[in-house]
Amino acid sequence: MPETDPFRWAGIPVLAYKEEGSHFRDVTRQVLFDGEGIGAELRYFEIAAGGWSTLERHQHVHAVLVVRGEGRVLIGDQVVAVAGHDLVRVPPVIWHQFRAAPHAPLGFLCLVPCGRDRPEQPDAAALAALRRDATIADFIRT
Amino acid sequence: MPETDPFRWAGIPVLAYKEEGSHFRDVTRQVLFDGEGIGAELRYFEIAAGGWSTLERHQHVHAVLVVRGEGRVLIGDQVVAVAGHDLVRVPPVIWHQFRAAPHAPLGFLCLVPCGRDRPEQPDAAALAALRRDATIADFIRT
Repeated sequence: MPETDPFRWAGIPVLAYKEEGSHFRDVTRQVLFDGEGIGAELRYFEIAAGGWSTLERHQHVHAVLVVRGEGRVLIGDQVVAVAGHDLVRVPPVIWHQFRAAPHAPLGFLCLVPCGRDRPEQPDAAALAALRRDATIADFIRT
Repeated sequence: MPETDPFRWAGIPVLAYKEEGSHFRDVTRQVLFDGEGIGAELRYFEIAAGGWSTLERHQHVHAVLVVRGEGRVLIGDQVVAVAGHDLVRVPPVIWHQFRAAPHAPLGFLCLVPCGRDRPEQPDAAALAALRRDATIADFIRT
Protein backbone atom coordinates (compact mmCIF):
# COMPACT_ATOMS: atom_id res chain seq x y z
CA MET A 1 0.00 0.00 0.00
CA PRO A 2 1.36 3.46 -0.77
CA GLU A 3 2.16 5.56 2.31
CA THR A 4 0.77 8.90 1.22
CA ASP A 5 -2.62 8.51 -0.46
CA PRO A 6 -5.55 7.15 1.53
CA PHE A 7 -5.83 3.40 1.13
CA ARG A 8 -9.25 2.01 0.25
CA TRP A 9 -10.50 -1.58 0.30
CA ALA A 10 -11.88 -1.90 -3.23
CA GLY A 11 -15.65 -1.96 -3.52
CA ILE A 12 -16.30 -1.23 0.17
CA PRO A 13 -18.07 2.05 0.94
CA VAL A 14 -15.96 4.66 2.73
CA LEU A 15 -17.95 5.88 5.72
CA ALA A 16 -17.70 8.72 8.19
CA TYR A 17 -15.78 7.62 11.27
CA LYS A 18 -18.68 8.62 13.51
CA GLU A 19 -22.06 10.16 12.90
CA GLU A 20 -21.33 13.41 14.71
CA GLY A 21 -18.88 15.26 16.91
CA SER A 22 -15.69 17.27 16.70
CA HIS A 23 -13.64 15.05 19.00
CA PHE A 24 -11.81 13.38 16.08
CA ARG A 25 -10.04 14.55 12.93
CA ASP A 26 -9.57 13.05 9.46
CA VAL A 27 -10.71 9.49 10.07
CA THR A 28 -12.54 7.22 7.63
CA ARG A 29 -14.13 3.83 8.22
CA GLN A 30 -14.81 0.81 6.03
CA VAL A 31 -16.78 -2.18 7.30
CA LEU A 32 -14.99 -5.19 5.80
CA PHE A 33 -17.14 -7.87 7.47
CA ASP A 34 -20.38 -7.06 9.26
CA GLY A 35 -20.14 -10.00 11.64
CA GLU A 36 -22.97 -12.10 10.17
CA GLY A 37 -22.35 -15.70 11.26
CA ILE A 38 -19.32 -14.67 13.30
CA GLY A 39 -20.53 -12.22 15.94
CA ALA A 40 -17.61 -9.85 15.50
CA GLU A 41 -17.21 -7.01 13.03
CA LEU A 42 -14.00 -6.21 11.18
CA ARG A 43 -13.49 -2.58 10.20
CA TYR A 44 -10.67 -0.67 8.52
CA PHE A 45 -9.95 2.78 9.86
CA GLU A 46 -7.60 5.22 8.29
CA ILE A 47 -6.45 8.34 10.08
CA ALA A 48 -4.85 10.87 7.73
CA ALA A 49 -1.48 12.37 8.63
CA GLY A 50 -1.96 14.65 11.64
CA GLY A 51 -5.41 13.25 12.51
CA TRP A 52 -6.77 11.44 15.56
CA SER A 53 -9.57 9.15 16.71
CA THR A 54 -11.90 9.92 19.61
CA LEU A 55 -10.50 9.70 23.13
CA GLU A 56 -12.88 7.19 24.69
CA ARG A 57 -13.42 4.04 26.72
CA HIS A 58 -15.99 1.23 26.80
CA GLN A 59 -16.61 -2.25 28.14
CA HIS A 60 -15.91 -3.99 24.84
CA VAL A 61 -12.47 -5.00 23.67
CA HIS A 62 -10.71 -3.74 20.53
CA ALA A 63 -8.29 -5.99 18.70
CA VAL A 64 -6.27 -3.80 16.36
CA LEU A 65 -3.83 -4.68 13.58
CA VAL A 66 -1.86 -1.78 12.17
CA VAL A 67 -1.52 -2.33 8.43
CA ARG A 68 0.04 0.89 7.14
CA GLY A 69 1.67 4.11 8.14
CA GLU A 70 2.61 5.05 11.64
CA GLY A 71 1.42 6.87 14.71
CA ARG A 72 0.98 6.68 18.44
CA VAL A 73 -1.68 5.22 20.69
CA LEU A 74 -2.78 6.09 24.20
CA ILE A 75 -3.78 2.93 26.07
CA GLY A 76 -4.56 3.55 29.71
CA ASP A 77 -1.54 5.34 31.15
CA GLN A 78 0.84 4.67 28.26
CA VAL A 79 1.52 6.33 24.92
CA VAL A 80 3.11 3.84 22.53
CA ALA A 81 4.46 4.19 19.00
CA VAL A 82 2.84 1.89 16.42
CA ALA A 83 3.60 1.05 12.80
CA GLY A 84 2.79 -1.57 10.18
CA HIS A 85 2.00 -5.08 11.51
CA ASP A 86 1.83 -4.10 15.17
CA LEU A 87 -0.95 -5.75 17.15
CA VAL A 88 -2.74 -3.71 19.80
CA ARG A 89 -5.33 -5.08 22.23
CA VAL A 90 -7.40 -2.45 23.99
CA PRO A 91 -8.78 -4.01 27.20
CA PRO A 92 -12.18 -3.12 28.67
CA VAL A 93 -12.76 0.32 30.23
CA ILE A 94 -9.38 1.78 29.31
CA TRP A 95 -9.00 5.29 27.91
CA HIS A 96 -7.57 5.10 24.41
CA GLN A 97 -6.90 7.33 21.42
CA PHE A 98 -5.11 6.76 18.11
CA ARG A 99 -3.11 9.49 16.39
CA ALA A 100 -1.44 9.36 12.99
CA ALA A 101 2.09 10.72 12.66
CA PRO A 102 2.35 14.31 11.38
CA HIS A 103 3.81 13.06 8.08
CA ALA A 104 2.10 9.66 7.59
CA PRO A 105 -1.36 8.13 7.78
CA LEU A 106 -2.25 5.43 10.28
CA GLY A 107 -4.32 2.59 8.80
CA PHE A 108 -5.55 -0.25 10.96
CA LEU A 109 -7.97 -3.13 11.11
CA CYS A 110 -10.15 -3.15 14.22
CA LEU A 111 -12.11 -6.17 15.42
CA VAL A 112 -15.02 -5.66 17.82
CA PRO A 113 -17.93 -7.77 19.08
CA CYS A 114 -21.23 -7.04 17.32
CA GLY A 115 -23.11 -6.61 20.60
CA ARG A 116 -21.06 -3.82 22.08
CA ASP A 117 -21.64 -0.93 24.44
CA ARG A 118 -21.54 2.71 23.50
CA PRO A 119 -18.20 4.50 23.99
CA GLU A 120 -17.93 7.06 26.77
CA GLN A 121 -15.87 10.26 26.49
CA PRO A 122 -14.02 11.74 29.47
CA ASP A 123 -15.78 14.35 31.61
CA ALA A 124 -13.85 17.25 33.16
CA ALA A 125 -12.71 15.18 36.15
CA ALA A 126 -11.51 12.29 33.99
CA LEU A 127 -9.66 14.72 31.71
CA ALA A 128 -7.98 16.37 34.68
CA ALA A 129 -6.89 12.95 35.93
CA LEU A 130 -5.46 12.03 32.52
CA ARG A 131 -3.63 15.36 32.29
CA ARG A 132 -1.76 14.77 35.54
CA ASP A 133 0.67 12.82 33.34
CA ALA A 134 2.62 15.30 31.18
CA THR A 135 3.08 12.84 28.30
CA ILE A 136 -0.64 12.10 28.20
CA ALA A 137 -1.54 15.78 28.59
CA ASP A 138 0.59 16.55 25.56
CA PHE A 139 -0.78 13.64 23.54
CA ILE A 140 -4.54 13.74 23.93
CA ARG A 141 -6.92 15.67 21.70
CA THR A 142 -10.54 16.33 22.69
CA MET B 1 5.57 -7.49 2.88
CA PRO B 2 8.03 -9.23 0.55
CA GLU B 3 6.47 -11.65 -1.91
CA THR B 4 8.93 -14.55 -1.68
CA ASP B 5 9.97 -15.23 1.93
CA PRO B 6 7.34 -16.34 4.41
CA PHE B 7 5.84 -13.39 6.23
CA ARG B 8 5.63 -13.63 10.02
CA TRP B 9 3.78 -11.44 12.48
CA ALA B 10 6.60 -10.47 14.87
CA GLY B 11 6.51 -12.14 18.27
CA ILE B 12 3.60 -14.44 17.45
CA PRO B 13 4.37 -18.18 17.49
CA VAL B 14 4.23 -19.89 14.10
CA LEU B 15 2.07 -23.00 14.46
CA ALA B 16 1.33 -26.05 12.41
CA TYR B 17 -1.74 -25.47 10.25
CA LYS B 18 -3.45 -28.53 11.74
CA GLU B 19 -2.44 -31.13 14.25
CA GLU B 20 -2.36 -34.02 11.81
CA GLY B 21 -3.19 -35.17 8.30
CA SER B 22 -1.78 -35.11 4.77
CA HIS B 23 -4.71 -33.27 3.18
CA PHE B 24 -2.84 -29.94 3.13
CA ARG B 25 0.61 -28.77 2.06
CA ASP B 26 2.95 -26.00 3.25
CA VAL B 27 0.59 -24.01 5.45
CA THR B 28 1.47 -22.15 8.65
CA ARG B 29 -0.81 -20.51 11.20
CA GLN B 30 -0.40 -17.62 13.61
CA VAL B 31 -3.13 -16.73 16.12
CA LEU B 32 -3.14 -12.93 16.18
CA PHE B 33 -6.05 -12.53 18.60
CA ASP B 34 -7.48 -15.44 20.58
CA GLY B 35 -10.95 -13.97 20.82
CA GLU B 36 -10.91 -13.10 24.53
CA GLY B 37 -13.54 -10.42 25.09
CA ILE B 38 -14.60 -10.55 21.44
CA GLY B 39 -15.79 -14.10 20.76
CA ALA B 40 -14.04 -14.36 17.42
CA GLU B 41 -10.50 -15.42 16.69
CA LEU B 42 -8.24 -13.76 14.12
CA ARG B 43 -5.57 -15.97 12.56
CA TYR B 44 -2.97 -15.42 9.86
CA PHE B 45 -2.40 -18.30 7.46
CA GLU B 46 0.33 -18.44 4.93
CA ILE B 47 0.38 -21.03 2.18
CA ALA B 48 3.78 -21.33 0.50
CA ALA B 49 3.98 -21.22 -3.30
CA GLY B 50 2.44 -24.43 -4.65
CA GLY B 51 0.72 -25.33 -1.35
CA TRP B 52 -2.92 -25.77 -0.36
CA SER B 53 -5.26 -25.79 2.62
CA THR B 54 -7.58 -28.67 3.50
CA LEU B 55 -10.65 -29.20 1.31
CA GLU B 56 -13.41 -29.00 3.91
CA ARG B 57 -16.74 -27.61 5.02
CA HIS B 58 -18.38 -26.68 8.31
CA GLN B 59 -21.29 -24.78 9.83
CA HIS B 60 -19.21 -21.78 10.86
CA VAL B 61 -18.39 -18.87 8.61
CA HIS B 62 -14.92 -17.77 7.51
CA ALA B 63 -14.22 -14.10 6.83
CA VAL B 64 -10.98 -13.92 4.89
CA LEU B 65 -8.77 -10.95 3.94
CA VAL B 66 -5.99 -11.72 1.51
CA VAL B 67 -2.97 -9.66 2.55
CA ARG B 68 -0.15 -10.92 0.32
CA GLY B 69 0.68 -13.05 -2.67
CA GLU B 70 -1.87 -14.70 -4.89
CA GLY B 71 -3.75 -17.90 -5.47
CA ARG B 72 -7.13 -19.44 -6.13
CA VAL B 73 -10.00 -20.47 -3.90
CA LEU B 74 -12.72 -23.06 -4.33
CA ILE B 75 -15.96 -21.80 -2.78
CA GLY B 76 -18.89 -24.10 -3.42
CA ASP B 77 -19.04 -24.61 -7.18
CA GLN B 78 -16.66 -21.79 -8.13
CA VAL B 79 -12.91 -21.44 -8.39
CA VAL B 80 -11.90 -17.78 -8.08
CA ALA B 81 -8.54 -16.01 -8.34
CA VAL B 82 -7.55 -13.98 -5.28
CA ALA B 83 -4.74 -11.54 -4.53
CA GLY B 84 -3.79 -8.85 -2.02
CA HIS B 85 -6.71 -7.01 -0.37
CA ASP B 86 -9.44 -9.30 -1.68
CA LEU B 87 -12.19 -10.12 0.79
CA VAL B 88 -13.66 -13.62 0.77
CA ARG B 89 -16.64 -14.75 2.84
CA VAL B 90 -17.04 -18.52 3.09
CA PRO B 91 -20.72 -19.22 3.96
CA PRO B 92 -21.83 -22.16 6.14
CA VAL B 93 -21.56 -25.75 4.84
CA ILE B 94 -19.78 -24.88 1.60
CA TRP B 95 -16.83 -26.89 0.32
CA HIS B 96 -13.77 -24.68 0.17
CA GLN B 97 -10.03 -24.93 -0.40
CA PHE B 98 -7.29 -22.31 -0.75
CA ARG B 99 -4.30 -22.81 -3.05
CA ALA B 100 -1.27 -20.55 -3.42
CA ALA B 101 -0.07 -19.78 -6.95
CA PRO B 102 2.82 -21.95 -8.20
CA HIS B 103 5.20 -18.98 -8.00
CA ALA B 104 3.83 -16.95 -5.05
CA PRO B 105 2.67 -17.51 -1.48
CA LEU B 106 -0.89 -16.82 -0.39
CA GLY B 107 -1.13 -15.02 2.95
CA PHE B 108 -4.50 -14.23 4.50
CA LEU B 109 -6.21 -13.21 7.69
CA CYS B 110 -9.11 -15.46 8.67
CA LEU B 111 -11.75 -14.52 11.20
CA VAL B 112 -13.83 -17.29 12.83
CA PRO B 113 -16.17 -17.53 15.82
CA CYS B 114 -14.55 -19.01 18.93
CA GLY B 115 -17.36 -21.53 19.42
CA ARG B 116 -17.13 -23.32 16.10
CA ASP B 117 -17.83 -26.81 14.78
CA ARG B 118 -15.22 -29.23 13.57
CA PRO B 119 -14.52 -29.21 9.81
CA GLU B 120 -15.69 -32.15 7.72
CA GLN B 121 -13.74 -33.55 4.77
CA PRO B 122 -15.49 -34.98 1.72
CA ASP B 123 -16.19 -38.71 1.58
CA ALA B 124 -15.99 -40.66 -1.69
CA ALA B 125 -19.50 -39.68 -2.76
CA ALA B 126 -18.93 -35.98 -2.05
CA LEU B 127 -15.63 -36.08 -3.93
CA ALA B 128 -17.27 -37.74 -6.91
CA ALA B 129 -19.95 -35.03 -6.90
CA LEU B 130 -17.31 -32.27 -6.77
CA ARG B 131 -15.36 -33.89 -9.60
CA ARG B 132 -18.31 -33.82 -11.95
CA ASP B 133 -17.16 -30.26 -12.67
CA ALA B 134 -13.93 -30.41 -14.69
CA THR B 135 -12.57 -27.12 -13.28
CA ILE B 136 -13.12 -28.29 -9.71
CA ALA B 137 -11.76 -31.77 -10.49
CA ASP B 138 -8.58 -30.14 -11.75
CA PHE B 139 -8.34 -27.74 -8.81
CA ILE B 140 -8.92 -29.80 -5.69
CA ARG B 141 -6.21 -31.58 -3.70
CA THR B 142 -7.06 -34.24 -1.12
